[in-house]
Amino acid sequence: MAEMATAPFSAQLAFLAELDKLKSILRQSSLINQSRKENSAEHSWHLAMFALALAGHAGSIDRNRVIQMLLIHDIVEIDAGDAPIHVAGVDKSALEHAERMAAERIFGLLPEAQGREMLALWLEFEAAETPSARFEKALDRLQPLFLNTLAGGGTWTENGVTEQQVLERYGPTIERGSPELWQEARKLVRQHFSARAE
Amino acid sequence: MAEMATAPFSAQLAFLAELDKLKSILRQSSLINQSRKENSAEHSWHLAMFALALAGHAGSIDRNRVIQMLLIHDIVEIDAGDAPIHVAGVDKSALEHAERMAAERIFGLLPEAQGREMLALWLEFEAAETPSARFEKALDRLQPLFLNTLAGGGTWTENGVTEQQVLERYGPTIERGSPELWQEARKLVRQHFSARAE
Repeated sequence: MAEMATAPFSAQLAFLAELDKLKSILRQSSLINQSRKENSAEHSWHLAMFALALAGHAGSIDRNRVIQMLLIHDIVEIDAGDAPIHVAGVDKSALEHAERMAAERIFGLLPEAQGREMLALWLEFEAAETPSARFEKALDRLQPLFLNTLAGGGTWTENGVTEQQVLERYGPTIERGSPELWQEARKLVRQHFSARAE
Repeated sequence: MAEMATAPFSAQLAFLAELDKLKSILRQSSLINQSRKENSAEHSWHLAMFALALAGHAGSIDRNRVIQMLLIHDIVEIDAGDAPIHVAGVDKSALEHAERMAAERIFGLLPEAQGREMLALWLEFEAAETPSARFEKALDRLQPLFLNTLAGGGTWTENGVTEQQVLERYGPTIERGSPELWQEARKLVRQHFSARAE
């Protein structure tokens, strides 16, 4: 009979197997080539690369902590699903409750100290009070904005979203994390809508 | 007329737009639910989570550097494609050349100092001489092994790969990065093949 895996390793593998499900959670945004919708696992990778490439535009943040937060921030969607930004009528407090339950269940698969550490990281992201967490929220908003400008308007076109609504729904979060990035992102939005108006 | 993006930002965005293509590079391994093949972007995310969860099984590594290396290690596949482990007849030196060209082109989209930094990180991974790079290579080999054991044998079953071949093709790389992880991975391999033999 085969030996069993030792305790910390088997708990870690159970967690890593569970994470595979994030590859099947679809977001609203399409890939730039518009072949299909983006999933939350590849979105998380792309965001971590945004952090590597754009960290110089933030104030005093801990880049490695930002990357770790970005890697784990969407894991709760395995249970709670992706919450679309342009759809009205989402029950915010029910969603927050579902995400909190999901975080406890999924990070709880890990050995206890490790699970606590990841839960704390996710709660820091959710609270959006530290400069690192605010920068992370800014990137999480910037990435779909950027994909939309490169994919013919993407979810904006699909949902009939106006330039003013884009500024209201993306601006405050990006600006809070990095005024410099918002200044640049605002130019992309202006270019996109002025090209469509011509 | 809309303002243009400022220089470092526009170079960084060109790089980040290029990276979107990694979401369309398919690997040999399937998702655990066997619904489709895995792509290299979501694989890179999963690997970074392997590093977060399993770093305690390595010697003296720099976990954040490992995560950064894992995030960028497959970007060259945008030009050079994914090199399958179980297919004979791959021209290794032609592949290495293509990957080197790809690294220079894609990291070269970034502002110069940033591009040089990422190229150095990728070269460290390729050389596999530092403990961090060896651990990274180990995880890159462990993740598909793990997916295969959870997906009915996956690429092993598809390619008629024997237990002995698995030990030879995965063992040295995993053991060099972490003897402890190889000890555990070996148990998973034994379990898988003994269950199939019953």
